Amino acid sequence: MKAIEDLVSLLTHLPGLGRKSALRIAYALLKSDIAFSEALAEHIRTLRSTIHFCAECGSYSEAELCQVCSDSSRDRHIICVVEQPQDVITIEASKEYRGLYHVLGGLLSPLEGVGPDRLSIAKLLQRIRISLNSEPIQEVILATNPTIEGDTTALYLKKLLEKDPVRVTRLATGIPVGGDLEYADRLTLARSFRGRSIL
Amino acid sequence: MKAIEDLVSLLTHLPGLGRKSALRIAYALLKSDIAFSEALAEHIRTLRSTIHFCAECGSYSEAELCQVCSDSSRDRHIICVVEQPQDVITIEASKEYRGLYHVLGGLLSPLEGVGPDRLSIAKLLQRIRISLNSEPIQEVILATNPTIEGDTTALYLKKLLEKDPVRVTRLATGIPVGGDLEYADRLTLARSFRGRSIL
Repeated sequence: MKAIEDLVSLLTHLPGLGRKSALRIAYALLKSDIAFSEALAEHIRTLRSTIHFCAECGSYSEAELCQVCSDSSRDRHIICVVEQPQDVITIEASKEYRGLYHVLGGLLSPLEGVGPDRLSIAKLLQRIRISLNSEPIQEVILATNPTIEGDTTALYLKKLLEKDPVRVTRLATGIPVGGDLEYADRLTLARSFRGRSIL
Repeated sequence: MKAIEDLVSLLTHLPGLGRKSALRIAYALLKSDIAFSEALAEHIRTLRSTIHFCAECGSYSEAELCQVCSDSSRDRHIICVVEQPQDVITIEASKEYRGLYHVLGGLLSPLEGVGPDRLSIAKLLQRIRISLNSEPIQEVILATNPTIEGDTTALYLKKLLEKDPVRVTRLATGIPVGGDLEYADRLTLARSFRGRSIL
């Protein structure tokens, strides 16, 4: 059945979908309301034209400025630097952070030929320096992943910001809440010792 | 982000997709080629209008008659009765069977109020009886799942066909190829004893 095969082969390009799960989805669509298929198709079609990147911080936005950048109640003295737009959504979901964001659009990776000029670093420095004239940014939280690339990028940014009047911090690494010492890898365990706090 | 949330909530209605996998798919679509999103949307939109049910056997088809029913090289003396259209695709993929099909469109289930009139049973009897005038169907393979509903439906059909000059058979049940005695449930093991064959 060509129509089914074509759809399945497109679906298997999406993350987490193998041939079997793609087939199950195709069958479900064949059984579903026509209205459902049409709504799904329409949302997929318009997603890319509805969602842009915020002109200020680079995260996903439906307008010129994203909801965070245009929200006057956010704390403009603190900025959280992340790798990708979805990291902003993840952090927002935790409701722990009330400052601004900056999306790098990737991580430094010499092996893959990603240098500083491929990331939104110049814009970050510009945002920090311009802020000094009105509401100065006082803290930059480097929230890149605790991986080799994430750590390298964080160290690089820390070095760049050395002369600026800002505090540069990094998210804590350690054993996850609900985790088990037994299953923590050596590096995580080592970092959780180094970062131990007084009870 | 409303556009992302709307798409995610539609995607979670599909089988096998929870919130996290739906989000991953939405992010992948945001990063993908626009051409890819548009092709995917188009295929989802047209799937239902392209795929119909075969007027003869009830399986999926892009034309009035499905590929099997319209293929003159198939063995018209044998008919395989299945629950749903996708069972036809599954059996075709095994390349083991060269006869015709008949899709019931469900299984008998008194608890859910599914009686014989809700299934394509009258049409099956009609096909068998009409065939006697030209190329008589000699065997009916009942390939419903080996579950309570599948077995009940098979027994019901066997009873209905008692007086017809056809052989009624059922797919073998037993330990799957590559399976392990240790993990076979009691019923499967019992059936594989009853159905044992001479080596």
